Amino acid sequence: MPGAQRETKHHDGEGGGENPPDQRALLPGTRPDKVNRHASLGDAGDRKRRQVADPMHETFTHWLHFIEDRFTASGAGHYNEKMSLVVVGSVAYDGVETPHGRVDRMLGGAATYISLAASYFTQTRIVAVVGDDFAAEDEELLASHGVDLEGLERVPGKCFFWAGKYTPDMNDRETLTTELNVFANFEPKLPESYRAARYLLLGNIQPSLQRDVRAQMTHLRLAGGDTMNYWIHDHREELLKTIRDWDFLLINDHEARMLSGEINLRRAANKILDMGPHTLVIKRGEFGAMLFRKDSYFIVPGYLLEDVFDPTGAGDCFAGGFLGYLAEHGFSLEGDHISRGMLSRAVIYGSVMGSFCCERFGVERFRTLTRAEIDARFEEFRKFTSF
Amino acid sequence: MPGAQRETKHHDGEGGGENPPDQRALLPGTRPDKVNRHASLGDAGDRKRRQVADPMHETFTHWLHFIEDRFTASGAGHYNEKMSLVVVGSVAYDGVETPHGRVDRMLGGAATYISLAASYFTQTRIVAVVGDDFAAEDEELLASHGVDLEGLERVPGKCFFWAGKYTPDMNDRETLTTELNVFANFEPKLPESYRAARYLLLGNIQPSLQRDVRAQMTHLRLAGGDTMNYWIHDHREELLKTIRDWDFLLINDHEARMLSGEINLRRAANKILDMGPHTLVIKRGEFGAMLFRKDSYFIVPGYLLEDVFDPTGAGDCFAGGFLGYLAEHGFSLEGDHISRGMLSRAVIYGSVMGSFCCERFGVERFRTLTRAEIDARFEEFRKFTSF
Repeated sequence: MPGAQRETKHHDGEGGGENPPDQRALLPGTRPDKVNRHASLGDAGDRKRRQVADPMHETFTHWLHFIEDRFTASGAGHYNEKMSLVVVGSVAYDGVETPHGRVDRMLGGAATYISLAASYFTQTRIVAVVGDDFAAEDEELLASHGVDLEGLERVPGKCFFWAGKYTPDMNDRETLTTELNVFANFEPKLPESYRAARYLLLGNIQPSLQRDVRAQMTHLRLAGGDTMNYWIHDHREELLKTIRDWDFLLINDHEARMLSGEINLRRAANKILDMGPHTLVIKRGEFGAMLFRKDSYFIVPGYLLEDVFDPTGAGDCFAGGFLGYLAEHGFSLEGDHISRGMLSRAVIYGSVMGSFCCERFGVERFRTLTRAEIDARFEEFRKFTSF
Repeated sequence: MPGAQRETKHHDGEGGGENPPDQRALLPGTRPDKVNRHASLGDAGDRKRRQVADPMHETFTHWLHFIEDRFTASGAGHYNEKMSLVVVGSVAYDGVETPHGRVDRMLGGAATYISLAASYFTQTRIVAVVGDDFAAEDEELLASHGVDLEGLERVPGKCFFWAGKYTPDMNDRETLTTELNVFANFEPKLPESYRAARYLLLGNIQPSLQRDVRAQMTHLRLAGGDTMNYWIHDHREELLKTIRDWDFLLINDHEARMLSGEINLRRAANKILDMGPHTLVIKRGEFGAMLFRKDSYFIVPGYLLEDVFDPTGAGDCFAGGFLGYLAEHGFSLEGDHISRGMLSRAVIYGSVMGSFCCERFGVERFRTLTRAEIDARFEEFRKFTSF
């Protein structure tokens, strides 16, 4: 099972991406690691209590959403093991240059960004591979966010390394270096303890590997993931076979156009929704995001930051916030009671996490970010989009 | 007073625009013409009555907006002469080629699109010039929408003609022909009957001409307009002197960046709001629009059409819908009681009118469009953006 991997897109879903070299990615083992209790649970509980305690300060709309959340989510409010989220993807080091400065080596990788973002909402379990140069302080950052590291394999060799330079408007970037290293043979296998998790987010790796991971999960409630131009163009049949079983596909606008063969995004979405996923999320970088289902769609503009320090990882943080929020609420597909409102709010939380990611280089923002800040920005989105 | 004019942007605020040749534009006379009573008044009235008669079918939010509209607008609900809107700009013929087809000659021009769009909301009075080739049926289209044509001067010569071809994704276009003709010496003067109008929308002409028009208005409640890269780059001081007195500036994202010297739109907006206008609207084409004020901002994504036939005029229709809605409600700046909600809804109505414009070539859509369709699309915006 040859495993090509993403060259540039592993750390950000927003760029167009280049064709990666067709190389194998590694085989994971298992390693024990501490599993912290979800750090933000207290905050989430506080938020709910605030809504109950002071309903007069909430608008009628907020109140409706609160009621909807309570009654449409199966098991809503019960944070437990079964709602944990498994994340598969890269853990890497990046070198990044933007108009705001340069960092030669910093923690990166899709699985890193997704896990950190999702950790504010739910228990996150990572499946990835690192080399023996993976720093203790980086492991500690993930652990401090309660990320389960049992599925993080350490093998001899070096971590995936990528370096790139952004254009002045930061809408494009040039890849300067790609060293696959231990990622070249990534072939994820799940620790036994991960298999009953209800949520699965498949980062952008070879479609057949994504399919294998999904097949190992025994109690999935919601599964889906990301892909990129290389798989769409060069491994189309394998990709189509893989996403046929997904609940959601989360890609950017270029990829949606390439996958569907349609320039118009509404037409593109209709075609993709016939390929399997009942939910399609299209990320548009600074222009926001869209969620499509057969019978409805939702669009949100991007958050306007005064300073975008580094867009690396923003797309992955979007994915982490999106699925993290759904997992937090125990969102279910059983009984066909999908809440459009909850999906829309998941898109907002995705956008919120993507916006925070851009405020500092790499994962820096996640060292200080709190759930209270996240919820405050969610409310900011409501304020600048409602009419 | 030399009057350069817009080469391509006269008929669409969305494109980047090219530098127009520096030529003079014409001097208007006055001509009597029939003034039909506003065609859509009945529809607007119906809409209000529906909101009163059947409040249980409206959401709480709608009801709040209705109440807000009633109490924040000075004279709200009273459609009268004083709330009419004066529109200054080009009336032209266009030749357009898009992936959906080609039309060699059709009615166009900024003032045409603005007036048609605004006519669904309020009495619109046009100030423009046409040649003796201006067709009776085109005059009839404007008249049938209740547009006051007293300020439409007919002079010997030919109408402004522009032809262009759009790229496959319709985000860009190439100018094939520009014939200024009678527009070369456009120097607008207002009919006496226009001077007491409360609303003024200055299409993109030489800033000093815009200033002259504004100076002739005696009872302005809200005034502002559009400009383009040529004025920003080559006539900056004149432009800055002109917009200093405007309430609002309505430009696209490229122009906002050029005017402010900032790539980041939030920073750009802050700088522009220091130049005079208290309200800045930035159009982003397919990505929607943003409204900035010193203390708040509002962003809406673009409407997703399945078929964009022809984007020509969409930016001008946005302007017409935006200011038309404000004029319809008698929105006032007196007493400093500006309603953020009303401004946001004006942006939505602008977006609605821009989206309809793209559904057919040129002004074709306005031959059949009804106020009921407009209000239905407004509700559609609410549906796909609320969470």
